[in-house]
Amino acid sequence: MPVRFHGIYAPVVTPFHQQQVDHGALHSNLLRYAESPLAGIVVLGSNGEAVMLDDDESDAVVRTARVATPSDKTLIVGTGRESTRATIAATRRAADGGADAVLVRTPSFFKPRMTADAFVRHYEQVADQSPVPVLLYNVTMFTGVTLPAEVVTRLAPHERIAGLKDSSSDLAQLADYIAAAGETCVVLGGSAPTLYPALCIGAHGAVLAAAGVAPEICVRIFELVQQGRHDDARLWQQRLIPLARAIGSRYGVAGLKAALTLAGYKGGEPRGPLLPASPEAIAEISAALSALHIFA
Amino acid sequence: MPVRFHGIYAPVVTPFHQQQVDHGALHSNLLRYAESPLAGIVVLGSNGEAVMLDDDESDAVVRTARVATPSDKTLIVGTGRESTRATIAATRRAADGGADAVLVRTPSFFKPRMTADAFVRHYEQVADQSPVPVLLYNVTMFTGVTLPAEVVTRLAPHERIAGLKDSSSDLAQLADYIAAAGETCVVLGGSAPTLYPALCIGAHGAVLAAAGVAPEICVRIFELVQQGRHDDARLWQQRLIPLARAIGSRYGVAGLKAALTLAGYKGGEPRGPLLPASPEAIAEISAALSALHIFA
Amino acid sequence: MPVRFHGIYAPVVTPFHQQQVDHGALHSNLLRYAESPLAGIVVLGSNGEAVMLDDDESDAVVRTARVATPSDKTLIVGTGRESTRATIAATRRAADGGADAVLVRTPSFFKPRMTADAFVRHYEQVADQSPVPVLLYNVTMFTGVTLPAEVVTRLAPHERIAGLKDSSSDLAQLADYIAAAGETCVVLGGSAPTLYPALCIGAHGAVLAAAGVAPEICVRIFELVQQGRHDDARLWQQRLIPLARAIGSRYGVAGLKAALTLAGYKGGEPRGPLLPASPEAIAEISAALSALHIFA
Amino acid sequence: MPVRFHGIYAPVVTPFHQQQVDHGALHSNLLRYAESPLAGIVVLGSNGEAVMLDDDESDAVVRTARVATPSDKTLIVGTGRESTRATIAATRRAADGGADAVLVRTPSFFKPRMTADAFVRHYEQVADQSPVPVLLYNVTMFTGVTLPAEVVTRLAPHERIAGLKDSSSDLAQLADYIAAAGETCVVLGGSAPTLYPALCIGAHGAVLAAAGVAPEICVRIFELVQQGRHDDARLWQQRLIPLARAIGSRYGVAGLKAALTLAGYKGGEPRGPLLPASPEAIAEISAALSALHIFA
Repeated sequence: MPVRFHGIYAPVVTPFHQQQVDHGALHSNLLRYAESPLAGIVVLGSNGEAVMLDDDESDAVVRTARVATPSDKTLIVGTGRESTRATIAATRRAADGGADAVLVRTPSFFKPRMTADAFVRHYEQVADQSPVPVLLYNVTMFTGVTLPAEVVTRLAPHERIAGLKDSSSDLAQLADYIAAAGETCVVLGGSAPTLYPALCIGAHGAVLAAAGVAPEICVRIFELVQQGRHDDARLWQQRLIPLARAIGSRYGVAGLKAALTLAGYKGGEPRGPLLPASPEAIAEISAALSALHIFA
Repeated sequence: MPVRFHGIYAPVVTPFHQQQVDHGALHSNLLRYAESPLAGIVVLGSNGEAVMLDDDESDAVVRTARVATPSDKTLIVGTGRESTRATIAATRRAADGGADAVLVRTPSFFKPRMTADAFVRHYEQVADQSPVPVLLYNVTMFTGVTLPAEVVTRLAPHERIAGLKDSSSDLAQLADYIAAAGETCVVLGGSAPTLYPALCIGAHGAVLAAAGVAPEICVRIFELVQQGRHDDARLWQQRLIPLARAIGSRYGVAGLKAALTLAGYKGGEPRGPLLPASPEAIAEISAALSALHIFA
Repeated sequence: MPVRFHGIYAPVVTPFHQQQVDHGALHSNLLRYAESPLAGIVVLGSNGEAVMLDDDESDAVVRTARVATPSDKTLIVGTGRESTRATIAATRRAADGGADAVLVRTPSFFKPRMTADAFVRHYEQVADQSPVPVLLYNVTMFTGVTLPAEVVTRLAPHERIAGLKDSSSDLAQLADYIAAAGETCVVLGGSAPTLYPALCIGAHGAVLAAAGVAPEICVRIFELVQQGRHDDARLWQQRLIPLARAIGSRYGVAGLKAALTLAGYKGGEPRGPLLPASPEAIAEISAALSALHIFA
Repeated sequence: MPVRFHGIYAPVVTPFHQQQVDHGALHSNLLRYAESPLAGIVVLGSNGEAVMLDDDESDAVVRTARVATPSDKTLIVGTGRESTRATIAATRRAADGGADAVLVRTPSFFKPRMTADAFVRHYEQVADQSPVPVLLYNVTMFTGVTLPAEVVTRLAPHERIAGLKDSSSDLAQLADYIAAAGETCVVLGGSAPTLYPALCIGAHGAVLAAAGVAPEICVRIFELVQQGRHDDARLWQQRLIPLARAIGSRYGVAGLKAALTLAGYKGGEPRGPLLPASPEAIAEISAALSALHIFA
């Protein structure tokens, strides 16, 4: 593949201890990912509770991640902010901290104003000033806006724009992004329940909460598709769905953190206003992990 | 496959001439489908403008379809109505008219009341009284409601319920339906831009507007997946998307009818309030057809 | 007021007995409305379960309503269908049956196609062929589409278009309709929790489920606003809200029918797939009625 | 009225000059508001582009506002952040800077997790630690979440919670908030097209973009309702709507800033990714201002 940044990535959670970022716990998790078959990690993504951290905390997370991430793994840093100006500043700080690329969530607060022209200008200015490759990031579930495929078409020729991630499970939309991205841009999925079909239609990889808990299974699905072993890929996809659902749309970050704890990582609780996973959620997640033979 | 009704189906449009159903045109189109590689046809579906027809017109369409459809093709008839009572009556008339199965759209007018329990009771009563197999039909784009996967789980054991069609391009939802349907129920897709990945994850076929215009291509994708020739399937899927988009989400029934006319079928215009396809729409559809070497 | 059809209307439910329309019960309810202070009634509206009835049943409801409705009350009949053609036919039958005006719900099945141009053409053709005045009807909660105010502006000059009803509680939208309707068209609200403020901004009346159960209170609010007695109007509005909520957005038609039974009218159960009101719903509705001193 | 913070407030825009907050322009605008009949101002609200500013910029805006706002005007500061922790920190800084009260937008990024319990815990912790009164702030248009009325009921007894602002034009929802707020909490509207009816049903005031451009008209409507002069209030409301629409739902912050410039205030352009108002937008806004006899 001519594109860069293909493969399976885990979005790393930000562990907290007594309200503070727990860098020891973060480092510990990252060392396990360093030995996993993952292509790399994403810090300060949605599941990293980026919106819960201030800039100093964010910068410290990048530094810890850089130290704990070996050079054969890619370190991607989420740097999306509401203003173009703050996004550029966060992008530069991430690059200074050692990011291999940045993942820039669509701004979304002023929803009716987020036109194709506004997105193009935003991303062009960010890319113009970014020292590292930029990945666009569409996550309608959280932002309430959708990046038009037309924007991808217009931005794909920019030398600093390396591709995009789409967290949706709408594969018609993903197909449009793939067509818009052309030959040079990577397209990463973000929905574990549709990992296998996303790869079938040409996605180059994915950033998946499930890859933080079950990296081997996610990478196995990726490799099986590459090997053309579709029956096995479909089977593993089906096995993965209950866990993927539980730590995704069903229980969110709190569920992911609970799953990590159950799997022997450092999870803990999310920052408020997010509530910790309920006993019922933990029971369901535990059952999904057991079915995959994942234990602490 | 143990399930029935797998394969690719065309949803047949209802041609009009001077405000009346044009049975000659309908018959002519059906004869072409009879010689196509399609598994069968659906009359009185969304693209058949079922909601535009009164009961007498609907019954006449079924009769014409039965006459023009050879016994090696499956004739599926849309019979969804808002009331359970009218749905049962339409289902019986369709069976009398020779339907091999009925496709029953979710009732949807009283959206907040369409709970899982309401759906289960509705479909159980319809299935109890249907002389032919019943397929559930979820089409959120038009109904504004979504059939919960839980409803499929509860209905799948019913001997008269043969499966379901889902028109969405959300493949996480389709995966949930497939899991809920179990071993005995067919799951058909309804979104041509996601035909290939839907088949990858285990859909048994699809009902596709694009199959009415380009039956050979849609069936080819189906067969390529069955043969494990994924690269070719992906390629044909990508080629199909522009046409699928134009006659689907972009221009709807008017676009499909225009495409049929351009492809040598009898298309014509939809009933009001639907407006005929604009010159711009026809130009885009024509280009999409030409790219696939489809001409009248 | 120069406009016609102002005032408070009750949308009459369609009682059923053993699956059939119970014309005796309908007649009995109508006789009570005939002696109420209501301006008139609407039959075959959303709360009349119009979408659950076939054409013969609908025509019979109109005949019963005409017989039971004295000439000093206005009889409005819902005649909206998905096709322009069927809407015209239903409108003519309603006029033949004695309707004083028809209330024509927006077609909505093919949601993305329901453009301003499509609505204008639809309503123009209906109005051109209607023997009686036509009221437009926007009910986004059930249709999933919204009539653009621009359509009202374009249709208001038509001599057969007498105004519109909007069931929304969005008063910015209602204000736009009022501005678009001009001097000659009536604007009726359809949301009992916002009756008082709708009248404040210039609505000429309303069609309210609550008016079927508590006609005196709804008419009182109308009259208090006309008399400029705003403090009393606000007070009665606040008292009305719990009942209005319960038989509106909370429990729908089944709740309205339960409330009617509790208030001494003939209610009964809705047609499937609607489920009857649960014991909890009935308890809440009963409490709301008691608070208003409404008993059988 | 026993409640505090009633009346009409202008949400103050944040002027920029060469990418930096223009404190001179801000001060200049504030001096005009100081001489207006407004009850007070809101800085760092949605229209203040709060999401575009970093914490240092925000603190400086509060200081400038405090200096320029006389003691007979109320200074409300927006301090909502995604995390409870950051919201508390911003609230304390605002109080240190002289805020009379804080307006705390609902957190919203993790939409499916924003349950009633999560909102209650969030606001309780903020209120517990706030040195000044707290106003809840629901703005679904931008956040994609809606504060349940139940949350208001549960929070209203808290001594530090002084009320809420709702930006919606859904008056059934506003009525629910008013009922939930009880006797001690202020309820402010946020939709200028529904100012008059919101006051009719018992809102105690409003925070309105239109009040930044046309403070006299907005205050006049407030006073006319207090005086029971409903016909005049309705008339002024109708006159205000075209401007309110243009600088609200139609063109947003860029439109508001353009309107301010046209009205002789310091407006300028918003921060990217927001685009400046187009010439067509400016022409429409200019016409709306002229119709109200507002000029620079």
